[in-house]
Amino acid sequence: MDSKSIQVLRIGQRYVRDDRTLTHLCLVSRAFGAELIYLEDAEKDVTGTLEGVNRTWGGEFKVVLGTPWRKLIRDAKKEGRSVVHLTMYGEPLQEVMPRLRELDRILLVVGGPKVPGKVYREADYNVAVTSQPHSEIAALAIVLHEIQSGEELKRTFHKSRLRILPSARGKRVVEN
Amino acid sequence: MDSKSIQVLRIGQRYVRDDRTLTHLCLVSRAFGAELIYLEDAEKDVTGTLEGVNRTWGGEFKVVLGTPWRKLIRDAKKEGRSVVHLTMYGEPLQEVMPRLRELDRILLVVGGPKVPGKVYREADYNVAVTSQPHSEIAALAIVLHEIQSGEELKRTFHKSRLRILPSARGKRVVEN
Repeated sequence: MDSKSIQVLRIGQRYVRDDRTLTHLCLVSRAFGAELIYLEDAEKDVTGTLEGVNRTWGGEFKVVLGTPWRKLIRDAKKEGRSVVHLTMYGEPLQEVMPRLRELDRILLVVGGPKVPGKVYREADYNVAVTSQPHSEIAALAIVLHEIQSGEELKRTFHKSRLRILPSARGKRVVEN
Repeated sequence: MDSKSIQVLRIGQRYVRDDRTLTHLCLVSRAFGAELIYLEDAEKDVTGTLEGVNRTWGGEFKVVLGTPWRKLIRDAKKEGRSVVHLTMYGEPLQEVMPRLRELDRILLVVGGPKVPGKVYREADYNVAVTSQPHSEIAALAIVLHEIQSGEELKRTFHKSRLRILPSARGKRVVEN
């Protein structure tokens, strides 16, 4: 599993800013084992939030700002990284998953209703987590979980200040 | 799978209203096979959104408002419905899952930082989807997915107006 390299690209073109959804996408990418997320320049506020989370809870997850998505997708393909676009219009996850699990290097593209047609055409896979409307946050989590066969749940994050001791009741947190 | 009855209870005590997160929670509950979600009275705006989604995309998912969470948890336990509380402080999902999969009737409780201690004590299971901070939307999706062993991805929604034909490229939607 550690040999897999998963990066996330969020293509956002909302008219109303949606900081909370964006933060969820970053935190899910980090917690489920992606190494970084690419965002647009305007979304820099979230960078500090994620740096704080790294300091407290460990790991080296990165937020990378301002590279145009066209270049990111082109570069990914040049480097042999597979482009997997999450969309409710795509092929059912359960059918594509055996092929996705074989990939070692992935750029996961998370968009929304406004994603340009070019992304559908350039992606190596367009993948649907159900064909029902729900949440890009949920879709991202499920795909990260399935691609890594659930192994990401056992991941540890190095150099954390705090650590949770799992508990059947209550909250147990220790300082490292 | 169809014999499973899964209900979701969202306990929210945020000072800032967070409609978008709430909508995601409802849509994920619906898309991943829960039969209903319980919300607080003040959150009635989302009811119309979900009715619209049912009309367009099918199914009979329900939003139920205004029943106090104490009563819901008490009633669930009386009726033999297991209470499963999602929290980053709980037992690792991958360890609890074999037991969760055996349950036929579940009340999934989704909270947040402000969940009262009583919920931790009353729950039959406190379950963590990683012990890292991320997203209640992602946690809910992963647990619904795992409890149903991925079968929920194949679910069909009856009486929909629109239906997506899964596609390797582009968007194909038909009217029923």
